[in-house]
Amino acid sequence: MKNKHLLTMDALTVAEIDAILFDAHLFSTIYKDWQFPDNHRVANLFFEPSTRTQYSFESAQHQLNCKVTTFNEQTSSVQKGETLYDTVKTFEAIGMEALVIRHPENEYFKHLVDKINIPILNGGDGSGNHPTQCLLDLMTIKEEFGDFTGLKVAIVGDIQHSRVASSNLQAMEKLGMISYVCGPKEWSKNLTNYHPLDEVIEEIDVLMLLRIQHERHEATMQMTKAEYLSAYGLTKERMNKMKPEAIVMHPAPFNRDVEIDSDLVEHPKSRIFKQMENGVYVRKAVLKRAFGYEFPTEITK
Amino acid sequence: MKNKHLLTMDALTVAEIDAILFDAHLFSTIYKDWQFPDNHRVANLFFEPSTRTQYSFESAQHQLNCKVTTFNEQTSSVQKGETLYDTVKTFEAIGMEALVIRHPENEYFKHLVDKINIPILNGGDGSGNHPTQCLLDLMTIKEEFGDFTGLKVAIVGDIQHSRVASSNLQAMEKLGMISYVCGPKEWSKNLTNYHPLDEVIEEIDVLMLLRIQHERHEATMQMTKAEYLSAYGLTKERMNKMKPEAIVMHPAPFNRDVEIDSDLVEHPKSRIFKQMENGVYVRKAVLKRAFGYEFPTEITK
Amino acid sequence: MKNKHLLTMDALTVAEIDAILFDAHLFSTIYKDWQFPDNHRVANLFFEPSTRTQYSFESAQHQLNCKVTTFNEQTSSVQKGETLYDTVKTFEAIGMEALVIRHPENEYFKHLVDKINIPILNGGDGSGNHPTQCLLDLMTIKEEFGDFTGLKVAIVGDIQHSRVASSNLQAMEKLGMISYVCGPKEWSKNLTNYHPLDEVIEEIDVLMLLRIQHERHEATMQMTKAEYLSAYGLTKERMNKMKPEAIVMHPAPFNRDVEIDSDLVEHPKSRIFKQMENGVYVRKAVLKRAFGYEFPTEITK
Repeated sequence: MKNKHLLTMDALTVAEIDAILFDAHLFSTIYKDWQFPDNHRVANLFFEPSTRTQYSFESAQHQLNCKVTTFNEQTSSVQKGETLYDTVKTFEAIGMEALVIRHPENEYFKHLVDKINIPILNGGDGSGNHPTQCLLDLMTIKEEFGDFTGLKVAIVGDIQHSRVASSNLQAMEKLGMISYVCGPKEWSKNLTNYHPLDEVIEEIDVLMLLRIQHERHEATMQMTKAEYLSAYGLTKERMNKMKPEAIVMHPAPFNRDVEIDSDLVEHPKSRIFKQMENGVYVRKAVLKRAFGYEFPTEITK
Repeated sequence: MKNKHLLTMDALTVAEIDAILFDAHLFSTIYKDWQFPDNHRVANLFFEPSTRTQYSFESAQHQLNCKVTTFNEQTSSVQKGETLYDTVKTFEAIGMEALVIRHPENEYFKHLVDKINIPILNGGDGSGNHPTQCLLDLMTIKEEFGDFTGLKVAIVGDIQHSRVASSNLQAMEKLGMISYVCGPKEWSKNLTNYHPLDEVIEEIDVLMLLRIQHERHEATMQMTKAEYLSAYGLTKERMNKMKPEAIVMHPAPFNRDVEIDSDLVEHPKSRIFKQMENGVYVRKAVLKRAFGYEFPTEITK
Repeated sequence: MKNKHLLTMDALTVAEIDAILFDAHLFSTIYKDWQFPDNHRVANLFFEPSTRTQYSFESAQHQLNCKVTTFNEQTSSVQKGETLYDTVKTFEAIGMEALVIRHPENEYFKHLVDKINIPILNGGDGSGNHPTQCLLDLMTIKEEFGDFTGLKVAIVGDIQHSRVASSNLQAMEKLGMISYVCGPKEWSKNLTNYHPLDEVIEEIDVLMLLRIQHERHEATMQMTKAEYLSAYGLTKERMNKMKPEAIVMHPAPFNRDVEIDSDLVEHPKSRIFKQMENGVYVRKAVLKRAFGYEFPTEITK
């Protein structure tokens, strides 16, 4: 079996993205209960906390009949001196068949991929890549609009520090979408597609809110939460200006009344919890790809 | 399927309590190995530590063929700002089919039950409710005496701060039992059924000891452990005064030589480890109820 | 079923060691996919951290179709006052069918074995025993040389503080191996078989490196890491002096460029990752022994 790592959106062709999204769609519909015919041992190695990504992968793994091992560095005894390579090689040596890894180092996987003989699924690295988050966003958009070409998306938040944003911007361009970067201007330096949110709110199809780390930003920005919401967040007023078919997304966890008015979290336009649901389908799809399985009956796209 | 939360003892009718205890009894006898016909994903969300409740639920879930996800807030990355509702909704969104929740807030479930579409099993809330602990106590009593009516129970410990005690007192009254509240008088303020232990020790059927948090109480009570044992605990002398058929219970973890003389923990009258065993049967019963399963052959009570 | 604890190497006869190693060999070859015919609940109780032992046991348990419960004292709510016996008895009471225990107290199991009715597998105690580590070392040696008698082994490291070393020395003697204790002389006090590594490097069959806790030793030894490597570690120069068929072992985690030159970790003579793989086979073998299972077709040794 060819080793099917999932490391960056950039490494995926449009055809590969389409294939993953199609499988995710099948997992959400006719193959909801389909499982791997054999048990497989998968380890989730989290060197940085991430409740949502971790439990979503775990749910996907359980649904596919995997045996799940969870390793959280904070609560483990990993020797500070042990290299990532040695830890990863250890999990391979003790019989893991695939690894999900989140690690704070940018492109931590670069020095692993040639030497590890089991698939690595990137659960987030440094400030760079978070492919399954991007894929679940794409799945959510595709479910809604059927196609990507020409869709207009506004991303609001700390683009420069967000792994979600950089993965997404890359992929959206590849798929023919038009993106606007909104939010505080100091977070969008050197980005040519910067536009204040109020300038584009009426014409966008997708409003993609990002989590802001308020504690970190409050000092530099000198804004209260209410001021952020009013200046950059999704208020009721802005929601009312959006097109009827437009949708609102957020990778979560979200700050109520900062990025979004608390009353709007479950607004009919919000796909926030739908994204979480889709995250499981997407992760099942990349696990299926990693193990090289086919659905029992092949379906023509 | 109607949503079968288990939130408080008060919300259960006597018929419902009987049905759960009967199922628990069957799980302890002829249906020891019976499992759910399908895998189900259950998440245990512990926002407050509880070794015993957590592992007992996990054992019950494993025995029933569930896929178990464990979330401990202390060791997780839950954003401090995230509301309980958002966390719970997330676990629903990623495909969990039932949740066991322990949370320090009193009746944390009140603002969840109408909006969450999967069963919530209360693993303890604030100082109020802990229904599976109460049910396992009742199962242990019923196993012994066959019936509840007229049984005399003495509860010894910090009644006012104990979730176990308040759940139990409520339920025991409903089932026709007569309860005495013993232990330090300052912990039984305003309770009409207060009696010093030595006054009732010879006539009770059940002695229910509660854990005292000695560190907390030592300061206020000005008593050593040995003094507490002598004044309120189960000494050999008191054990000898109990009726031949009377039993001793404790929800555990117990403090040896504080609530109970260390030598008496496994005395023939002690049901302490039996309670733990019964806890698994009771939790299997409430999980069965939550998922709406029936045993393969219905048995007439 | 007779209770099949695994507590110390000393308690195993040579025939029992042979039987475990033979089963481990079968698990590594023709019975790679063999599972227990029934699910069994096993709890791993770690009162001291140990990534490698814990995850290796977990992998073995998953491969054998066990339901795995993991208890880490550091991240749990075990009441400081609760005795080990009470915790262990609790896990027995809630339906666990075997326990793997690591605990910092020497021979913690002594006061458990007569009162606990399920098998206890020792995952390491104090500075004394770590039988599965020893068995995986023996398996690795036997795989290589077919037999133990007359093999010469040099152990390098902190013999006096190493549970691995003391278990191994004991077992190797029993099996007819000749051992040399190398490394810093202050760590080999009163050991009659002390020899500087360079004196024996050319004639040994197995070089067994032990992890040194550099932080602890640096102060007392007044040596840098490079100085330790040069004086006692496995350098390229020493590797070149070893016999063609000789092998290098390390229980891991290893300190690159302290016990071993980083470039040599995956040298053809190194069995470090092979040991980790064998650790899973050995742990499957002791679990099989604990549950009293036989392979479907008995094979004559």
